[in-house]
Amino acid sequence: MSSSAVPDNEVDVVIAVLRADVSSFLEEWRAFFSRFHLIIVKDPDLKDNLRIPDGFDHVVYTKSDMDRVLGSNPTKIKFSGYLCRYFGYLMSRKKYIISIDDDCFPARDDKGLVVDAVAQHVINLTTPATPFFFNTLYDPYREGADFVRGYPFSLRSGVECALSCGLWLNLADYDTPTQAVKPNLMNTRYVDAVMTVPLRTMMPMSGINVAFDRALLGPALFPGLQLAGEGKVRWETMEDIWCGMCAKVVCDHLGLGVKTGLPYVWRKGTGNDAIKSLKKDWEGVRLMEEVVPFFQSVQLSKSAVTSEDCVIEIAGIVKQQLGPLNPIFASAADSLLEWVQLWRTAGSVSS
Amino acid sequence: MSSSAVPDNEVDVVIAVLRADVSSFLEEWRAFFSRFHLIIVKDPDLKDNLRIPDGFDHVVYTKSDMDRVLGSNPTKIKFSGYLCRYFGYLMSRKKYIISIDDDCFPARDDKGLVVDAVAQHVINLTTPATPFFFNTLYDPYREGADFVRGYPFSLRSGVECALSCGLWLNLADYDTPTQAVKPNLMNTRYVDAVMTVPLRTMMPMSGINVAFDRALLGPALFPGLQLAGEGKVRWETMEDIWCGMCAKVVCDHLGLGVKTGLPYVWRKGTGNDAIKSLKKDWEGVRLMEEVVPFFQSVQLSKSAVTSEDCVIEIAGIVKQQLGPLNPIFASAADSLLEWVQLWRTAGSVSS
Repeated sequence: MSSSAVPDNEVDVVIAVLRADVSSFLEEWRAFFSRFHLIIVKDPDLKDNLRIPDGFDHVVYTKSDMDRVLGSNPTKIKFSGYLCRYFGYLMSRKKYIISIDDDCFPARDDKGLVVDAVAQHVINLTTPATPFFFNTLYDPYREGADFVRGYPFSLRSGVECALSCGLWLNLADYDTPTQAVKPNLMNTRYVDAVMTVPLRTMMPMSGINVAFDRALLGPALFPGLQLAGEGKVRWETMEDIWCGMCAKVVCDHLGLGVKTGLPYVWRKGTGNDAIKSLKKDWEGVRLMEEVVPFFQSVQLSKSAVTSEDCVIEIAGIVKQQLGPLNPIFASAADSLLEWVQLWRTAGSVSS
Repeated sequence: MSSSAVPDNEVDVVIAVLRADVSSFLEEWRAFFSRFHLIIVKDPDLKDNLRIPDGFDHVVYTKSDMDRVLGSNPTKIKFSGYLCRYFGYLMSRKKYIISIDDDCFPARDDKGLVVDAVAQHVINLTTPATPFFFNTLYDPYREGADFVRGYPFSLRSGVECALSCGLWLNLADYDTPTQAVKPNLMNTRYVDAVMTVPLRTMMPMSGINVAFDRALLGPALFPGLQLAGEGKVRWETMEDIWCGMCAKVVCDHLGLGVKTGLPYVWRKGTGNDAIKSLKKDWEGVRLMEEVVPFFQSVQLSKSAVTSEDCVIEIAGIVKQQLGPLNPIFASAADSLLEWVQLWRTAGSVSS
């Protein structure tokens, strides 16, 4: 596995930090992260100073940077909790962004080898995706694999991959009702496969371990949906699920691909109480019943030819169709438009 | 892994035999096949007597049975070569059919354990499928797994699974151009996952290792597309690819699911010459360029409420839209209608 197709300086690793001591996190990732520039974004609600070990090329963004970029105008955009990662996306000037949560550590594959998550994300993003027809033997671009009999040759060149969704071993990304019912349910199965999520198929993207082509997809990764009772525990949030479906609609519309599968990370248990979080998460669980059919049916116009165009159009449709159902959606639509504006002013400068 | 949810007498194992000596095949499968009724269908072009070991509850169908069932009327339907398996489907009276080619043997999983392909197919067919939304951690009904955060609760009960597509280790099911370019390319990767092929996504089904719910899907599995130069080597045929896409359209329309992934079988190399087969296979390769966009766009009417209704409707659309492009399609449409008729007269009696 090699990421040599891409110079190291085209990749930013964005780390949203919700716990002040990131030493053990960075030490465990040192072999894979030290070649890259790190964008470390501190949750604005976190008061303690960060402890960052030596030897990493990094920048740290804090509340004061967010305040400076947002300016003094009233804004719907928030960067608290997990949302702080999006500030890192905004500040990056690189082509590729890889984002891994601070409770995730390098996993081992089914042969016991430590997984280089960065390299795998880069491979996913730099080899084609195949959204138009399903290859039963998984990623046809992987070494030792190909397209199976019956796969149309005209579809074998695939399309550019703009989004790579990794997975998690140990602590799985279940919602609170599931985790409350099955408190000991962990993900122990390493599935050695990458696949393209087919055209028009929606998936629940998790922000835990994700990478994207910032040049292609840019503003489609945004802090749009914030729950009223949003907490600091992953399952008390839905921003990444919403954002992933929006990004998938954009990719489908622009003829870009989304992959899922490898790389895995090892997600350490944080001892959170699922029962306690049930109340907060339930709001998000309920919203999904509206959100999923909505994104399954959204059609963008031909005049939307960039990620930015698509996001603006989606914001309008969200406001119109979902807005009347729940003020949280109207608010998300406003955030979307604000985000595009912010992306133009603060994020558009390329490296 | 257990198939106890289904009585053994609701399952037929159909084996298309293209080589007279099926002893080693059946001996290797004995532990998994001996509980079930076997339908052994002899390729009508095969002259030698079959060698079948003792201890299997089985019936053998040969050319004379096919002639009897087809009667004296002129017919487009042929059962030669791999097409003979469909005669077994026609003769079965069971709810579930499992079909494994005679060059396939039990595989070992990633832990070195021998795979019970029958049990896995039965599990696939008797647990729900989830075609409407993608679960990133694969089959949510598998022991130790569940739906990930963001998966709508209203979609978690899933739908009935009507078709289970297994995979192959060792000799992969590539087409002749691929195998000619990469003669040593084998499939060595065991991917421990079952997934639902999403709604409206077409996949290339292989008839090598497949199972279906005959009661639900019945006549949608048929010998429709026969290439002019069809041979006795898997890659010289396209009937299963065509049939799989037709079955997928039927499943999508009827709200049924299609799964792919486990079980694997170990496919032994037959020493065939890919270069030699290139000419025969090329016809099928070319056809796929028409066939795939066609099946991706087929829309069935609300009045089609059974598999039979759907097949009849598809036959009409094939005739109209594909017929003018190539006589092979017009012929396939005729075969489809004949097949439905045959299914009614010879196949409709339930056990």
